Amino acid sequence: MRKIAESTVRRLSLYLRFLEDFERQGTETVSSEALATRGGTTSAQVRKDLSFFGSFGKRGFGYSVPELAGRLRDILGLERTYRIVVVGAGNIGAALAHFRGFEQHGFHVVSLYDCDPKKIGQKRNSIPIRDQRRLEADLAKELVDMAIVVTPAGAAQEIVDRLVKAGVKALLNFAPIQLRVPDDVIVKNVSLVLELEALSYGLRNR
Amino acid sequence: MRKIAESTVRRLSLYLRFLEDFERQGTETVSSEALATRGGTTSAQVRKDLSFFGSFGKRGFGYSVPELAGRLRDILGLERTYRIVVVGAGNIGAALAHFRGFEQHGFHVVSLYDCDPKKIGQKRNSIPIRDQRRLEADLAKELVDMAIVVTPAGAAQEIVDRLVKAGVKALLNFAPIQLRVPDDVIVKNVSLVLELEALSYGLRNR
Repeated sequence: MRKIAESTVRRLSLYLRFLEDFERQGTETVSSEALATRGGTTSAQVRKDLSFFGSFGKRGFGYSVPELAGRLRDILGLERTYRIVVVGAGNIGAALAHFRGFEQHGFHVVSLYDCDPKKIGQKRNSIPIRDQRRLEADLAKELVDMAIVVTPAGAAQEIVDRLVKAGVKALLNFAPIQLRVPDDVIVKNVSLVLELEALSYGLRNR
Repeated sequence: MRKIAESTVRRLSLYLRFLEDFERQGTETVSSEALATRGGTTSAQVRKDLSFFGSFGKRGFGYSVPELAGRLRDILGLERTYRIVVVGAGNIGAALAHFRGFEQHGFHVVSLYDCDPKKIGQKRNSIPIRDQRRLEADLAKELVDMAIVVTPAGAAQEIVDRLVKAGVKALLNFAPIQLRVPDDVIVKNVSLVLELEALSYGLRNR
């Protein structure tokens, strides 16, 4: 399969969100125009995005909702579930433990980690907070697919080095630093301050 | 000023994070190489990014930390503070109310909004949760610069329409839908499920 752009992958996720709505409503077929409207793009873009992955739909009949949803799940690697640890049990970490969207989409947060002795042993939404020092020992026993890093910026690289050494190949990083990882490890970054600064830049430079 | 790419704006924010560290440590000058290392890019890219905004630094001497930090704050619109409302006082909304990074960077969350009568009147980190129905009345009295939308997907567009009508020009959206807004309104999206799906796509297609 060709390497496709990150922006395309994001639109595929958005199309899947809409298809899930259509599935819930029992809608059988959907046009590229309808997907385009919901995805904030054009029907030509929808057809181009989907053409990367072979032929879908019939001209004039639209796409079969269950077929297209199934194919997108397959492309996005969502035919299986993923086990996730969250490192950092502060407010954001706790909110992630409560976030229903993860579980609904097959992303299971199995444990939180923290270094604060007052938090260790507690639970957030039934998910245990474990001792950060036991990360390697725990990961050696229990396979984990992804880690979400919500530690302070100063602690993030060390934690990530330990996670990578323990075999984690996919990381979602909330700390406002650019992590260094080996080539075979995938990192996505969420920085809320960066997002707000992109807004302030936009307001300032209109 | 030329329109610059979103990826450049993001790197400017990252450079500023590093400069803030250098300021705290009392470091006077910084090389483009040091900024590049911390920003996960090349020194040529750093020089190119900064060249958009005029001449900085002296060849062989590096950049003055306070001068460059000040100039980046100016470019990013951070010489002032911003008043923000968060719509949706669930777990993520509450975590945002507690998030120290916002306040540290001049983004003041002034109130949360929710439609749950049990939550209205409570506080999160001293920030009041107000009745969502009073959004227009409140915004007419108190100027707000940005809104963060953390409602369920089904409610987000209606809330955004109301915020836009009330004069809000910058939105950070956590709901997994593509919002429709007028051309003069800036929207940035954070979708945690989309980020995890980008990781699962990456793991699936290595």
